[in-house]
Amino acid sequence: MSLAQIRIILVEPTGPLNVGSVARVMKNMGLQQLILVNPHCDPFGKEARLMAVHALNILEQVQQVGSLPEALQGCQQTIATTARPRSLSTPLETPRQALPWLLNSNLPSALIFGPEDRGLSNEELNYAQRFLCIPASPVYPSLNLAQSVAICAYELYQASKIPLEFSSDSSTKLASFDVLEGYYHHLEAVLLKMGYLFPHTAKAKMEKLRRLYNHSNLSAEEVALLRGILGQINFIWQHLPDNYSRKS
Amino acid sequence: MSLAQIRIILVEPTGPLNVGSVARVMKNMGLQQLILVNPHCDPFGKEARLMAVHALNILEQVQQVGSLPEALQGCQQTIATTARPRSLSTPLETPRQALPWLLNSNLPSALIFGPEDRGLSNEELNYAQRFLCIPASPVYPSLNLAQSVAICAYELYQASKIPLEFSSDSSTKLASFDVLEGYYHHLEAVLLKMGYLFPHTAKAKMEKLRRLYNHSNLSAEEVALLRGILGQINFIWQHLPDNYSRKS
Repeated sequence: MSLAQIRIILVEPTGPLNVGSVARVMKNMGLQQLILVNPHCDPFGKEARLMAVHALNILEQVQQVGSLPEALQGCQQTIATTARPRSLSTPLETPRQALPWLLNSNLPSALIFGPEDRGLSNEELNYAQRFLCIPASPVYPSLNLAQSVAICAYELYQASKIPLEFSSDSSTKLASFDVLEGYYHHLEAVLLKMGYLFPHTAKAKMEKLRRLYNHSNLSAEEVALLRGILGQINFIWQHLPDNYSRKS
Repeated sequence: MSLAQIRIILVEPTGPLNVGSVARVMKNMGLQQLILVNPHCDPFGKEARLMAVHALNILEQVQQVGSLPEALQGCQQTIATTARPRSLSTPLETPRQALPWLLNSNLPSALIFGPEDRGLSNEELNYAQRFLCIPASPVYPSLNLAQSVAICAYELYQASKIPLEFSSDSSTKLASFDVLEGYYHHLEAVLLKMGYLFPHTAKAKMEKLRRLYNHSNLSAEEVALLRGILGQINFIWQHLPDNYSRKS
């Protein structure tokens, strides 16, 4: 149970003051890994350094990557933050409900924050297994990015100090981001081939299937089981006559 | 139990960005009364307004007073924040322990924050009944003023809302026992037919698949999605030649 394995990922941040403030509160709360996806500001500039104060080491170790999947490489458990309910079948949780889960194992995990002006897109949300929304007044629910990180970092720090009630060995077997992505690509290919998906509907249906399996906390062994079924469907396929055509 | 009667008091704040950020997060969390004791910055200037965004009304209603006792006039319950243990006989509490007390009555109450550089003096602390310290890493325990207010405002908002509204409707959408059983029978039949399961191994593999889907919290809609895929596999089956035989 350690804060060190948790990545704080900011997608396309635009405010250097925010990035500096995030670095400071991360250090305040024992977090170390800050990853910026395609930042629209300079994380090493004067403004960011001004706000970071004694957390310059967090800024200096910032990783900058070009895409969210790159930032999530190797992650076992991912939570995305969102400002408002969307058309998600997975329920929104409070920071206090969701965040202790990231401390469940000593494997890499991530907490993702969207850009200041728009938050995370549906496509970006699809990379997460759980969704967090900071409770706020309906009159003005839009929090500043660095304030949102502060609240989550504070909850993580508190959770790290409390012995967890649930067993840790179930989570150590959780399928990693890469294993899950491999399954989704395999599933999409098979479903397209068998005529369940069509190119123009594939995206929407795959989003639903991703959400279904993302909130299932699949183990690597379970993913292997599901891929075995896909393999058998492929095997059947080879026995289909040439004149087989898709369901219309 | 109302947030409206809680005063947020900043003693001698020096950063206009901080004052603006405090106004924003106060409005986010349903707080309305901001009092500045002898401020060393302009709460109506460009920088404060920039950070307040849609909370300009909080800034415009700011009260400026010359001393802490003036700010506390009429208050029944007062909590002071402090960054580190001092020679206080009263113990330090966490925000979660101390803050619900401010909501205990509908009488005026206050939460006091010290200046950015030095925190509250012992004399200032003496005006409070309880003392709050935000848990933080001993490596760098000094939080930014606006971040400290954000964390406390978030705790106050949560304390005012218990029980929380989140994730109450998720359970109503969960697939019922019958719907899940229907799916498991359908799945077993299709997997047997396509040669993934064999009668003598079916039980053990189906147990694994049941466990996988049982811990997935599937909605009825998601079960329908999965049954759609099974339907399409059945459809393919009809096109197999008579001499198709199972994978051995």
